Amino acid sequence: MIPTIEWKDGKVLMLDQTKLPGEIVYVDCADYKTVAKGIKELWIRGAPAIGIAAAMGVALAARDIKAKDFDSFYGKLVPACDHLAAQRPTAVNLFWAIDRMKRFAALHRDEGVAKIKELLAREACKVLEEDIKINRAIGEFGAGFIRDGDTVLTHCNAGSLATGGYGTATAPIRVAVEQGKRIKVFADETRPVLQGARLTAWELMHDGIDVTLITDNMAGYFMQKGEIDLAVVGTDRTVRNGDVANKIGTYTVAVLCKEHGLPFYVAAPTSTIDLSMPSGEHIPIEERHPCEVTDVCGSLCIAPRGVKVKNPAFDVTPARYITAIITEKGAFRPRDIRKLGDAGADLDKVRIKREERP
Amino acid sequence: MIPTIEWKDGKVLMLDQTKLPGEIVYVDCADYKTVAKGIKELWIRGAPAIGIAAAMGVALAARDIKAKDFDSFYGKLVPACDHLAAQRPTAVNLFWAIDRMKRFAALHRDEGVAKIKELLAREACKVLEEDIKINRAIGEFGAGFIRDGDTVLTHCNAGSLATGGYGTATAPIRVAVEQGKRIKVFADETRPVLQGARLTAWELMHDGIDVTLITDNMAGYFMQKGEIDLAVVGTDRTVRNGDVANKIGTYTVAVLCKEHGLPFYVAAPTSTIDLSMPSGEHIPIEERHPCEVTDVCGSLCIAPRGVKVKNPAFDVTPARYITAIITEKGAFRPRDIRKLGDAGADLDKVRIKREERP
Repeated sequence: MIPTIEWKDGKVLMLDQTKLPGEIVYVDCADYKTVAKGIKELWIRGAPAIGIAAAMGVALAARDIKAKDFDSFYGKLVPACDHLAAQRPTAVNLFWAIDRMKRFAALHRDEGVAKIKELLAREACKVLEEDIKINRAIGEFGAGFIRDGDTVLTHCNAGSLATGGYGTATAPIRVAVEQGKRIKVFADETRPVLQGARLTAWELMHDGIDVTLITDNMAGYFMQKGEIDLAVVGTDRTVRNGDVANKIGTYTVAVLCKEHGLPFYVAAPTSTIDLSMPSGEHIPIEERHPCEVTDVCGSLCIAPRGVKVKNPAFDVTPARYITAIITEKGAFRPRDIRKLGDAGADLDKVRIKREERP
Repeated sequence: MIPTIEWKDGKVLMLDQTKLPGEIVYVDCADYKTVAKGIKELWIRGAPAIGIAAAMGVALAARDIKAKDFDSFYGKLVPACDHLAAQRPTAVNLFWAIDRMKRFAALHRDEGVAKIKELLAREACKVLEEDIKINRAIGEFGAGFIRDGDTVLTHCNAGSLATGGYGTATAPIRVAVEQGKRIKVFADETRPVLQGARLTAWELMHDGIDVTLITDNMAGYFMQKGEIDLAVVGTDRTVRNGDVANKIGTYTVAVLCKEHGLPFYVAAPTSTIDLSMPSGEHIPIEERHPCEVTDVCGSLCIAPRGVKVKNPAFDVTPARYITAIITEKGAFRPRDIRKLGDAGADLDKVRIKREERP
């Protein structure tokens, strides 16, 4: 697997995913504003990877603050955090990671500014290390739902490029392949930004997994012909009632799965869960620039000049379409997701057993 | 409206739609092999337009045949017809138009080769003239299903560029607009060949109709938000049980309409009806070159080198998803389409009344 993001020599090394699959280019981000730019301009994308980048961005911001006492330090850290948080609205990991870093700083307020800076850098690296473990755990839980011989549809890229490790949606696939199951993957190209074509197809090919690229509007055809067995996608935010927001087109995949009686799984690290939000219609949906639709990869114009365009980057898949949400704490029915926030809940009672494909 | 195809000075003038919307280029086709190439390479596409091109191609082939008697003439015409028919497999109009021209020639076998050549050229022009009238009639029947204030989703291009006149799917929209109804159109971009972005958005803008371009995977999102009221699409072949084959992605639009309780209309000139075929699973589906998926507009590579690709150009929408099939003879429920081939059928009994939106 190609690393997406690293903390190296006091800088954030970020793979510029907008250049894939043509070029493998790493950008050296020496300050938090460059990290913020990378998040905004999609050098890095995917909820978990955005969270890692944001945590590292906070660590960079902290390092560059000139302050003698904690209050002065923190007073300068908060605007940098706000700047990072303002880059994208939908994925909750951005806010989760920034909050985590802010809370961590406040917790260590008495240790001196120099020490806090050092601790924040370590904490950012810990976000990355934890993500790698979380991916693996999602893979272990999710692989039980994939049978030998299955063809799995995925949408967008919730792969290793969207995370620090195995990916979220691709983790069950990767673990199933490791277990010796013969698995095929259909990757939707995922217009307009083509994360499926440019990233998912590329990373799975790179790792020797059998992948076939299709356009988004072909998934229904292959389901109708019985050539797809299940779908697994990632998520940018999972809310209290089990609704999820993910890349535009995910909802259509879910509707198609329902129509064809196929399981539709969401791989969701618990960092994407936002129990403060009751249901999906409250999730802010990022509307991106029309040029993503009219100009493929920013360079080839495919539409008439001046045409009106809509470009919502995400859609909401209601809980009723979701067979299970696979987290690092186990797989759950969407209605049980709220129990993850309930300290007294007995998760064993609601966790779906491995190998028991719902 | 921009003319798609014309017979001019003994040549076929064909708009090269692969160059739209960037350039408006007409190709002079001086012989039937150039017409065949144009059909194969999508200079012209859309079932009715393919039919017109094929008829004109047969007329060109006939003109260039050196023969003294009918049998010798016809013996040379048939291979040219076969060559034209071999260019694309799914749209039935190609075969319908060629058969019509062959039957027409045979009918006039006693009038001498020179006269037959002249008559065939006139017959080909008649195919175009009739298509213009058919479009208009489809528009008149279909406009009754569109209400003031509606937003109509369409997929691919079944517009004027796909026909000789008003288009098929766009005809009800054009007539509704003429009737003073305020109509908005969402045009799916229609990967991989992008007929929606390059052609439908372009021709509707050109004619002052309010059109918004979206990617294929956004239609579900806008239906979920209540921003689409109905869908109208074209068809390349309608079979006996009312199943239709149309551009890849049409089936997904139909599934989404069902899920959201929206009417799904198919605009189908009777020349697309193939009553010899009992149901949709028998329709041959053209698999086109992978490069259409991996290289946008033949010039921008968006996928990793050597990736496996599937590229079915059409899908089949089963009759149960279709609210009505709008033909130039009226709108019918899919189950009643077979009655169009029944000389004794009372079509008035099964024709859906205008203004009675099913």
